[in-house]
Amino acid sequence: MMPVLPLSKQTLEAIQIKIDCKTKPLGALGALEPLASQLALITEQRFGKYFNNNDVGQVSIKKPTMLVFAGDHGINEENLSIAPSAVTKQMVLNFLQGGAAINCFCQSNDIALTVVDCGILQPISSNEMPKLRDTSVHTPKFVEQRLGAGTNNFSTGRAISVAQVKQGFSYAQQLVNEQVAQGVEILLLGEMGIANTSSAAALMSALTSYNVEQCVGRGTGITDEQLNKKVSLIEQALLRVTSASQEPANSDRDLTTEEVIELLSQLGGFEIVQMVAAILTGAAASIPIVIDGFIVSVAALVALRLDGNVANYLIFSHVSQEKAHQALLVELLAAQTFSNLPSQALLDLGLRLGEGTGAALALPLIKAAASFYNNMASFESAGVTV
Amino acid sequence: MMPVLPLSKQTLEAIQIKIDCKTKPLGALGALEPLASQLALITEQRFGKYFNNNDVGQVSIKKPTMLVFAGDHGINEENLSIAPSAVTKQMVLNFLQGGAAINCFCQSNDIALTVVDCGILQPISSNEMPKLRDTSVHTPKFVEQRLGAGTNNFSTGRAISVAQVKQGFSYAQQLVNEQVAQGVEILLLGEMGIANTSSAAALMSALTSYNVEQCVGRGTGITDEQLNKKVSLIEQALLRVTSASQEPANSDRDLTTEEVIELLSQLGGFEIVQMVAAILTGAAASIPIVIDGFIVSVAALVALRLDGNVANYLIFSHVSQEKAHQALLVELLAAQTFSNLPSQALLDLGLRLGEGTGAALALPLIKAAASFYNNMASFESAGVTV
Repeated sequence: MMPVLPLSKQTLEAIQIKIDCKTKPLGALGALEPLASQLALITEQRFGKYFNNNDVGQVSIKKPTMLVFAGDHGINEENLSIAPSAVTKQMVLNFLQGGAAINCFCQSNDIALTVVDCGILQPISSNEMPKLRDTSVHTPKFVEQRLGAGTNNFSTGRAISVAQVKQGFSYAQQLVNEQVAQGVEILLLGEMGIANTSSAAALMSALTSYNVEQCVGRGTGITDEQLNKKVSLIEQALLRVTSASQEPANSDRDLTTEEVIELLSQLGGFEIVQMVAAILTGAAASIPIVIDGFIVSVAALVALRLDGNVANYLIFSHVSQEKAHQALLVELLAAQTFSNLPSQALLDLGLRLGEGTGAALALPLIKAAASFYNNMASFESAGVTV
Repeated sequence: MMPVLPLSKQTLEAIQIKIDCKTKPLGALGALEPLASQLALITEQRFGKYFNNNDVGQVSIKKPTMLVFAGDHGINEENLSIAPSAVTKQMVLNFLQGGAAINCFCQSNDIALTVVDCGILQPISSNEMPKLRDTSVHTPKFVEQRLGAGTNNFSTGRAISVAQVKQGFSYAQQLVNEQVAQGVEILLLGEMGIANTSSAAALMSALTSYNVEQCVGRGTGITDEQLNKKVSLIEQALLRVTSASQEPANSDRDLTTEEVIELLSQLGGFEIVQMVAAILTGAAASIPIVIDGFIVSVAALVALRLDGNVANYLIFSHVSQEKAHQALLVELLAAQTFSNLPSQALLDLGLRLGEGTGAALALPLIKAAASFYNNMASFESAGVTV
C-alpha cells in the first residue's frame, strides 16, 4: 500500500484567508467552510504546492464515483439479520437493474455507480445479468473481484484466509487506481452485505475502547433476541482473536499491515477488506473519500489504524441510525490533524439503509462547498463595504 | 388571497403503502420518507385526486425557482446590525453579478434565481445594473416591486403604511402566480435586508408565547450592547402594538387578514410582507414552498396564522444558528395536520447567512426524496424476497 501524504498547515492558513475574504460574515456558511478548506487542501496536495502562483487555487472534484462493495457473511447462518443472505445477491441485481435507492440518488446527483462483487454467496452468471428497467438511468458498471462465496462464520473461526485478505487489498487497490487514472477526483463508498454489521461491530470493538455491546446495533431492524445473540457471538469471536494477539489492537498506536491483515482475516468481511484498501489507495492518490454509514466508517477506522494520515482525506457524509455510528464518528473525527477541518458529519437524516445512500445524498453539499470556494466574489471584487 | 386547500389523509395513507413496498427496510430512508410523502401529497392535490388511476402517481417538482426578497429597515438607524443599510443594495448588486453564496448554490443545484427589490434604500438605476462576472453562471432575473425607500424605524412608529402592505401582497401574489403559470412546481424563498432580524423577532414575539428576549439573536454577529438595545427597542414597539389591539395575537386562533396587515404595517418589513404573500399564493396553487432561515420562517408563521392549511405545504430546509430559529421551527412543524409529515428541518449546518442559502442547499435532498418515490423498484418488481 502506498503511504498517504500529510497535508500542509501553511496551505490551510492560506485557504482560510481566501474563505474569510468572501462576501459573507465570517463563518456564516457554518460547516461548509471547514469542508471547503478540506477540499482545497486535498486538491492542493494533489496538484502540488501553491499550484496557481501563490494563490491556493481552485477545488477540483470532477467525476464523482460511487463504489458499492458487496459481500456475504457466514455468520448469518446464526440468523442475525432481518433477511437471508440470498438478499445480498437480489439487491446487487436490483442495483444493476437501476431499481434501488442508491441508483435513484446517484442518478439524482450525477454520480457514476460501480457495483463490486467482493464475494456474494453465488456469482452472477452472464444470463442473470439484468437489463436496466429504466433507460434514463445512468448504467451502473459491474466489477467482479470475488474473494470467495461468502465468508466463514467468524464466531467459530477465521472469517477469511490471510491470502484472501491480501488478494482483496490488491483488487481494490487496482480498481481505485484505475478510477483515478480515468480522472475521478472524488470517491464515494457504499456497501451491501446481509449481516455485515456483525463484522463491523467486531472490528470496531477490537480497534477502540468500546465493548461489544456498545458497538452492536439493530442493523436494519432485528429483535431483542437476535441482538443478544449477536453480542454474545461477537464476544466469543473477540475472545479468540485477542487471546491470540500479543498486544491489544485498541490502543492508540498504529497497527502494522500484518496486524491489520490478521484482524480482517479473523473478523471479515470481503467487502470491508476491499473498502479498507480502497480508502488507503484513494487517500494515497490525494482524493477525498466520502464515507457512508457504519460499515464504511469501520473500514475507515481500520485504514486509519494502518495509516494515520488517512484521517484528513475522509469526508463523513451522515450519522446513521445504527447505534454505534455516532461514537465511531467522534473517534474518526478526532484523528484529524487540523482543528479547522469539519467537526461533524454533514447530514443527520436517520438513515439506516447503507448502499452508499448517505454518501450520495451528501455530494451536493460537497459540490456546494467547492462552488462557493471557487466562485464566490471577495468583498473587494464585489464592492461590498462591510 | 386565495384559500389554501387542505390535504387528504386518505391519499397520504395510499402514499405510505407505496413507500413501504420499495426495496428497503421499512423507514430505512429516515427523514426522506415523510418528505416524499409530503411531496406526493402536494402533487396529488395539484393534479387532482388519484390522478393516475387509483395509483398515487409521481411527484413532480419541475423548474425549482428561488425568489430572494430584499428590503431595507429604518430601525437600522439605531445601529442594530454589523453592517450599514447600504450593504443591502451592495449585496443585491452582488447577487445580480453572480458573486454571492446564493448564486453559487443555485448554480450548483440548478435553481433559477430571481432577486426582488421590495424596497431597498435606493433603487438600482439602469446604468448601475451589473454584468455577470462569470458567463457560466445562470443569469439571475431582477424584479422591481418597491414599496418604498426602506421602512420607517418601527421602534418609534409604524414601519409601513397599511396601503403599502396591501400593495406588497398584491405584488408578491402576481409574481408567484406568474411563476406557477410558467411551470414552476417548487418555490424556494430567501431574503436580504440589513437589520431584518429585528422585524422578524418582533413578529415572532407578537405571534407566539415567546418574549422578545427569547426571539432576539445576534443576526450575523452583533455585540452584547447591540443585542440589549435590540431587545429593548423591540419591546418598546410591541408595547405600542399590543396596547392598540383588543386581543393578543399570540393565541392559537387564526388571525383575520386585517389583523395580519395591521401587524405587518406596525413591525415591517417590505421583504417580509412580500414573502408572507408569496407563501400563501404558492400554497394556494398547491406548490411546495422551501423555507430558508429565521426571517423566512417568520414570514411562514405569519402566513400560517392567516391560513392554517399553509403548514402542510412548507418544507423546512435547515436550522440556522440564529437563536430563536429552533423554537420557531418547533412551532411551525407542530402546525402540520398529519403525523407522518417531516418532523425536522433537513439540514443543520450552522448556517447564518440568509439569502436563501439553506433552502438552495436542501433542494438536492428534496429531489432525492422525489426520485426514490418515483423511481425505486418495489420488492415485487425487483424480485427481492424480504
